[in-house]
Amino acid sequence: MLILELSHAECVEVLSRATIGRLACARDGQPYVVPITLSFDGTASLYSFSTVGRKVEWMRDNPKVCVEVDDIADRFHWTSLVVIGTYEELRDSPEDRDELRRAFELLQQHSLWWLPGAGTVGTGRRQTAPVVYRIRIATVTGRRAARSSPP
Amino acid sequence: MLILELSHAECVEVLSRATIGRLACARDGQPYVVPITLSFDGTASLYSFSTVGRKVEWMRDNPKVCVEVDDIADRFHWTSLVVIGTYEELRDSPEDRDELRRAFELLQQHSLWWLPGAGTVGTGRRQTAPVVYRIRIATVTGRRAARSSPP
Repeated sequence: MLILELSHAECVEVLSRATIGRLACARDGQPYVVPITLSFDGTASLYSFSTVGRKVEWMRDNPKVCVEVDDIADRFHWTSLVVIGTYEELRDSPEDRDELRRAFELLQQHSLWWLPGAGTVGTGRRQTAPVVYRIRIATVTGRRAARSSPP
Repeated sequence: MLILELSHAECVEVLSRATIGRLACARDGQPYVVPITLSFDGTASLYSFSTVGRKVEWMRDNPKVCVEVDDIADRFHWTSLVVIGTYEELRDSPEDRDELRRAFELLQQHSLWWLPGAGTVGTGRRQTAPVVYRIRIATVTGRRAARSSPP
């Protein structure tokens, strides 16, 4: 089996289809990783949302994040992307209003208002509004498996 | 939709079935997350392997890790576990020999010697032996979605 690096265009294509990723943040050297829903703007940012909890508190303290997106079918068919980026919370302020609207539009395309990121353990009562955030992409790299001929 | 905490017994059950997780490590405040194959020993450790690369170098520097295991079918059916633990590399030494044998046995049960963790980008030539490691579990928590009756 060969493992091939994806081109930037291939990474963009994979990100454009992605709706779920795993987001890692870190505090005091301790990483923390959870699944998130996400939407890629086609150029430079991922958008997502969350209720306030450990990951939002940690990302407010340390905005360095990593998002992994993959598609693992079997040993010969898998793709995995790693995005390194920066967490930026979008607030209901005049400066962020356009970005917030853009985030809502992107996230609504995938009807994503339901996944673990939005949830808090509880009784199903109405929850407070989620935090909407952008991850500015610094780098994205990807690999995929490919079958090789016998040596 | 309700989101429920899993009991410890439920977490153990989910880990026992898991073959893929997402491993996060961190260096200088920068998290990094990649998919790994894994095998749970039923009590206190996950076992996995990797070629030497960024994540092994980072975990040798900072053994604090986090592993996320999930099963996301749709909005009403998902489970997600978060394991916090410590990276311990198993070397071919008299002290680690029994543990290495145990790791091989566990990993071979799943026929896992193929996933991204074992791969390096290249031409398919024979690679150097992978690093085998154990993650000692400090805590494991889990959540699952459950449908709720209308309020």
